[in-house]
Formats: sequence, C-alpha cells, structure tokens
Amino acid sequence: MSSHSPPSSGSTLSNRGAALAARPGARDEADILYSRNWDLVTNPEGVVNLGTAENRLILDDVAEFIAEKKIKFEGADFDYGEGPWGSLRLRTAMAKFINAHFHPHSHLSPSNLTVSSGCTSLLSTLALTLANPNDAILLSSPSYIGFPSDMSLLAGLQPIYVRFPSSVDQFTSPPDAVVAAYSAALKHASDTGVAVKILVLCNPHNPLGRCYTKEVLVGIMQFCDRHEIHLVVDEIYALSVYSTPSATDVPFTSVLAVDWAKYIDENHLHQLYGLSKDFACGGLRIGSLYTRNVELQCAVSSLSVLHHSGTIPSLLASTLLEDTAWHDSFFATSRERLGRAAAFAKELLDKAAIPYAPGANAGFFLWVDLRRWLGEKDGDGGDEWAREEALSARMATEKVFMIGGRAQGTEEAGWYRFIFSRSEVVVREGVNRLVRALNASPDRCNAPVSKSGD
Amino acid sequence: MSSHSPPSSGSTLSNRGAALAARPGARDEADILYSRNWDLVTNPEGVVNLGTAENRLILDDVAEFIAEKKIKFEGADFDYGEGPWGSLRLRTAMAKFINAHFHPHSHLSPSNLTVSSGCTSLLSTLALTLANPNDAILLSSPSYIGFPSDMSLLAGLQPIYVRFPSSVDQFTSPPDAVVAAYSAALKHASDTGVAVKILVLCNPHNPLGRCYTKEVLVGIMQFCDRHEIHLVVDEIYALSVYSTPSATDVPFTSVLAVDWAKYIDENHLHQLYGLSKDFACGGLRIGSLYTRNVELQCAVSSLSVLHHSGTIPSLLASTLLEDTAWHDSFFATSRERLGRAAAFAKELLDKAAIPYAPGANAGFFLWVDLRRWLGEKDGDGGDEWAREEALSARMATEKVFMIGGRAQGTEEAGWYRFIFSRSEVVVREGVNRLVRALNASPDRCNAPVSKSGD
Repeated sequence: MSSHSPPSSGSTLSNRGAALAARPGARDEADILYSRNWDLVTNPEGVVNLGTAENRLILDDVAEFIAEKKIKFEGADFDYGEGPWGSLRLRTAMAKFINAHFHPHSHLSPSNLTVSSGCTSLLSTLALTLANPNDAILLSSPSYIGFPSDMSLLAGLQPIYVRFPSSVDQFTSPPDAVVAAYSAALKHASDTGVAVKILVLCNPHNPLGRCYTKEVLVGIMQFCDRHEIHLVVDEIYALSVYSTPSATDVPFTSVLAVDWAKYIDENHLHQLYGLSKDFACGGLRIGSLYTRNVELQCAVSSLSVLHHSGTIPSLLASTLLEDTAWHDSFFATSRERLGRAAAFAKELLDKAAIPYAPGANAGFFLWVDLRRWLGEKDGDGGDEWAREEALSARMATEKVFMIGGRAQGTEEAGWYRFIFSRSEVVVREGVNRLVRALNASPDRCNAPVSKSGD
Repeated sequence: MSSHSPPSSGSTLSNRGAALAARPGARDEADILYSRNWDLVTNPEGVVNLGTAENRLILDDVAEFIAEKKIKFEGADFDYGEGPWGSLRLRTAMAKFINAHFHPHSHLSPSNLTVSSGCTSLLSTLALTLANPNDAILLSSPSYIGFPSDMSLLAGLQPIYVRFPSSVDQFTSPPDAVVAAYSAALKHASDTGVAVKILVLCNPHNPLGRCYTKEVLVGIMQFCDRHEIHLVVDEIYALSVYSTPSATDVPFTSVLAVDWAKYIDENHLHQLYGLSKDFACGGLRIGSLYTRNVELQCAVSSLSVLHHSGTIPSLLASTLLEDTAWHDSFFATSRERLGRAAAFAKELLDKAAIPYAPGANAGFFLWVDLRRWLGEKDGDGGDEWAREEALSARMATEKVFMIGGRAQGTEEAGWYRFIFSRSEVVVREGVNRLVRALNASPDRCNAPVSKSGD
C-alpha cells in the first residue's frame, strides 16, 4: 500500500467527474447489450435489440459496395491527414451529395461544412458553443433520446419538451397552430427566468417517423428568427423515407430546400447530416454540420481536434458519398426494404393487438403504445414512470430491449420506440418476447424490500 | 433578408463559443499546411512540415501489412459496434500488446482499459473528470504542446511549467533533486491559491526525446501520492526508442513496469497509450487509458459517446496490435530508421552550425536552439516572444514549419522542435529553408506600422 491513503470513501474526481461517474452504469449495460445480440444460431442466449436505431437491412449492401471498390490503403491514409474538420475530398463529396439529394435552394460549398466524428459530438459541440450552462433547448415531445443527453453532458443545457394539443399535428397542421405550442413553451421558460437559445428539429422525426411540411418549417424558422433562437435541424434520416399503404404522404423537405434566408437570419440556421442512418454506417463516425455562421464555424473547428473522425473512415465515407450512380439503386433498395419491414412489424403488432402511432413513413421505428400494460397504480407512491421502468425490467427479463418514453420526453408513460429495421426472424422473435413481457403480471421488483409482501 | 436582423457586430454564440471562435485561426492555417505539404515532384510550391510529429518513415510498412492481411469488411463492421469505449477484441489486443512490450509488474486486463478516438480526447476527458476549472496541471518545461491546449480547451485547467536548475537533469538526476523542482512549483501554486490536481509526464519525453529512469519515476509517484495529485503518464512513444552514437543510454521504463502500488494510491495513477506514434497511425484515432480508478473509468466512459473511435479503425487497430510475430521486425525497422534519420538530421544541423540539445534517443524530434537568430532586442518593447514569433514568420516566408518554444512552455524564447522522421530529401530541403530563414535579417513585420522605419 502507498504511504498515504486517502479515505476510500471520498471521490478522487472533480465535481464534474463525480457527477459523470454517478450516471447510470452505461458501460456494463451496453457491454451486455451490444456484445450479446441475439442470433438464432450463433447466440440463442442473446438480447433482441429493438432499441438501437441501426438499419441492419442494408449493412451487407454497404459492405459489398466497399468490397467492390477494392480500396487499397496507402501509407498516407494512416497519418493525421488534412485537419480534424474533414478532408477537402470528404467535404466536397458531402456538399455534392447534399446538393444532389436535398435540393438545396442554393448550392452548398465544402467551405461551409465541418465534419466531425458523428452527429453526437456535433450536438455536444453546438450546445457548448451556442448556449451557456442552464440555458434551454426546445424539443418537440417525444424527442430523440440523444438530444438532451448530448447537449447536457458537457454543456449543461436543459431540455424543454414542447407538447402539442391533440387538435394539433406538429408535422402538418397550420404553422400558426404548431408555433403556438413553441411560443407557449418559450413564454413559460421566460416567466421562470430560463433563457431558450436553441430549438432542435429532427426531420424526418425520430421517434415518430414523420416529415414536416414546408409551411411548418417556415413557421418554425420565423419563430426562431423572432426570438433569436438558433434552429438546429437534424436531417440524418433524410433518405430513409419509405412508403406503405398506411403511411402519411408528406415527403421530406430539407430546411435547405427552402429559401430560408427570407425567414431566418443566416447566423441562426444550422443543418446536420451524417452517414449513421441512411448509409447504416454508425461505426464510421461521420457527421456533418452546415452553417453560414462564420463565428460558429470557427468555434466548432476549435474543438474539432477532440472529434476527428479519422482518415480511413473519411476515405470510406468519401467513396460512399461520391458514387452517384450507385445511390439511385442503393436508396431505392433501402426504401423498399424499410417499407416492407415496417409493414411486417405492423402486421405482427396488429396480430398481438399492440397499438402504435399511425402515419409513420420515415426512419427505422414505430411509436408503440404500451400504456395499457403498465399495470395498476399501486398506491405505494409508485408513479407512472416507476411503472414504465418496471415494464422495461420485464422486457429485460424476457431479453428484449426497447427505449421507453421517459428518456424521450413523452408526456405520458408507456410509449416505446420499436426499431423494425431488422431481419424478419429478429423482429418476430422480438415481438414474441415483447408479448411475453406484456403478459407477465406487473410485479414490485423496484419497490423497497420492506414492501415486498404487498 | 430576414424580418428581424440582430446587430451584425454582436456575437450569436455562448461565452464559451465566442472565446473558442476568437482563438487563432487554426482552421485556415492548418488547411494550408496539411493540404500543401511540399514534394519535389508533385507539389514543389508546398510547405516543408517539420512541425507535425508523424513518423513518415514507416507509413508504407503499415499500409503493406494491412494490405497483406486482405481484410474484408463485413456488414457488421459498419454499424455502431459494441460500445464507444472500445470493442472487447480491441481492448484485449491492447492489453496483450502492453503486457508483451511494456513489461508491466502485473498483467493488464481489458476491463481496465478505455479506448477513445485518440489520446487528445482522453487528455481532454481526464482534465474534465479529474480537476475543476482553473485547477492546475504540472508539466515539465518544455512540454508537448498538446497538454495545455487539450486540457484547457473544455476543462479550463491552467498549466504550470516546472523549470529545472541547470544542475538537474529531470531524466537521470537523483529523484530528490528532480522532485524538488516539482515541490517548488507546487508550493508557489499553493501560495497563490491555485490547486494542483494533475501531473502529466510524457515518457519518452516530447519534445526532448529522452526517457526517465525508474528512480525518477518512483520519486514522482511518491511526490504525487504525498500531495494527492493524479499522475497521468503518456507513453505514446514507448516503442520509438532508437539509438545513435550520441544518444543517452537510458532505456524506456514504463510506469506500469514498476511495482507502482507500493508508491502511489491506485486511484491516482493513469497511463496513456495509442497508435499515433509507434504505429504511425494518427489517422486511426486510437488512444487507450489504463486506470484502476473505477470511479474515473465510469466518468470517462460516460463521455465515450463523444469520442467513439469507430468500428473500422478498431478493426484495423486490433489487426495491428495482435500480430506479435510482425511486431519484432516492424519495431526493429522503425528504430533503425529513426536512428538513421536522427543521425542524418544532426549531420545537416552540425554542418549549418545549428545547435541542438544532446542525448535524445526516442521520438521523432530534436530540440534545436535558435536563440542566436532571434535578432536584437529592438527597444520598442518587442520582447523575446515577439522575436520568436518574428523568427517563425521568417520560416513561414521560406515555407518551412516548426513549432516554437513558447507554445511548449520554454523558459527562454528561441527553441524549436525539429521533426526528423521524414525522407532525407524532405529533411535536407527543410534544413536548407531553415538556413535561409535564419540568414534573413530580422525585420519588424510584427511591429506597428508607425514604427516601420525603425
């Protein structure tokens, strides 16, 4: 032992470090989840992961495309490369790709793009550079689980979830009605002394799987402009818009396809894209920020050394983005498979009488309504969120994983995001396990031991 | 234009964002430097970069090794993978590699390793988790340029450079003499109300290219233990120890090779390694943290989502780390070429009568003494650092790049880190340009215009 031993009970970390260490034990849980994915043959004891938003339907196509390119890595591909904000080749490829597929009102230049090791790190960086600690972000409810965590982890921002009255559809209602909900949330924040600095829009929306009309986009831009709020639009599912008989017919409109400078100061609009969803390449860690705010680009680039996506991933990403001839067939295949997988999942859910929100036509998910399986309020002070947690625990017992509503900012407990972009074998197994979890009677596993006889 | 335009002079960013944006224009400068590296044939107008610590002597060997492995990427290699702290395969490979080459006192387990997208992000994360804003880091002078920037960028720590009297050699003097310098710096900090939380040691040392004796390592461990200071040892040049006739004979001793638990509480010792230097793979972004501090590992893992090194780099890194048969020849080749390149650089510097610190036997650099070319003090208040900046500007005019002493925490201006791990053609061209820059008479390019006739 050392001559001097600090008390073993005391933390040796900074305040921030101790707080980070006290977060739920993500590392152990994720190690179990990711290293033990269920497979009928190779890993029958594994967990069926219907929680992680990966498109496994096109992974092999990506691998085949890369294999056919017979890329030979040169020595120079292993060194530091051009700079941590993305090589000129990659930024050029990204600009051309967005120009070709997002129909921007004016063409993007590579010089307005900053590449980072995924949109996760870009969201953290935007939070650090656009807002001060304890400032707020407006998020539509429900919301992608990563927005509040990525933007609070280092920057300490707080999410404000915007609720919409049942008469308002946030995607297609008249813009004034949609904006009224954002205005009410902003007013409530102001009244309580909270400064709102950022509104994050996810279009197509995660977890609802729907797209915003151009009119709603314009209304939100004008709202942000009026209040000097930064509008960050995450378009990472842009090319994963499929169609099924029951889907809405609102197509994807990029915020860049609007003549946006008419509606919002150019310093306040920022668009995100990446290869993790449409290209199924979450492991490449490629995210891209488009902004005309020069000061912001400088600030974000100052942090790029921490989020360099690496030279080999950049080379592979450039290769994927540059082959426009391949894109047509690849994205057609992707849309067709997503539509088929969504229909298959709906069929199984319908058979099991598990309801889900209608109208989804984009992304990898259905928004399933498990409220009726939450169990009775037990009178012990166990609130609806504790009952959602208990339901998640029953799913864990049955080795099926989905993300519940609480972490996604839902108003009510009992909603889950169901990822359907898996093989039919996996989705069927997942639904079977889910049904078992739902049929298991609610227990008191999370209640204090002294109450265990209740 | 938008209906509401905020005043164009005002920043739209957070306080932190505005401060980051105001940092020197790194993006533009680096774009020029990295995209325009000099080459006799392909880019005769480029800059000779003797500033970036890359080992270009072994890049082709790495590329050939990877090519021979004929790795076929599978679909699963493109998705998110196991978790952002490193796949079990990669952490196992890293543990085995360190166990084989660093001779640790007790074998490392993969469960004590956290992989991140490079040591840069690990340093930032350690700063955030081990110390509070404005706390201090002790660094030996001179020091790797990245330590203060990586650890201040987000965490706001301040570097304290420890100076050694001319009678003390920080690598080989009796430990008490070395520790006395650290103690004096600590006392000065305490006297001025600054809390020192971290001591960062770079072994082998960048930029001095030398290794610490085991006795000095023990002395520093005991010092840290006495004062509850976290000791972070960056061993990223561990296998780049070469030999030349003029080199010191101190070999590399890993801090893990010492029975360190006898000298320092296990919560206070943390070791860094990565593939950017010994494997010349800066573009893979693979850094590794070994710590037995469970709370720290939890805190660092909570931030891992921001620094995921990606699945393809992890796969390539595992491949590089696992082939023990190849390591012997690869590292022998690397050491032999580094020794030859160091000797070649010294020969050219000797011919040009440019002095350098003697005794370097590790890393990619010589510590060259350009003090006599700083020019006369001009009496205009231009201090020695302004004259160093002017010398750097003369080098930029001659299109040769090196990093000056100021950013490396030197006591005196005029010292530069000279990277020799380049082809002889590049090093010769670099020295020729350097000689021209030194011979150009000092001008007043940085003085105010009104003084231009002085």
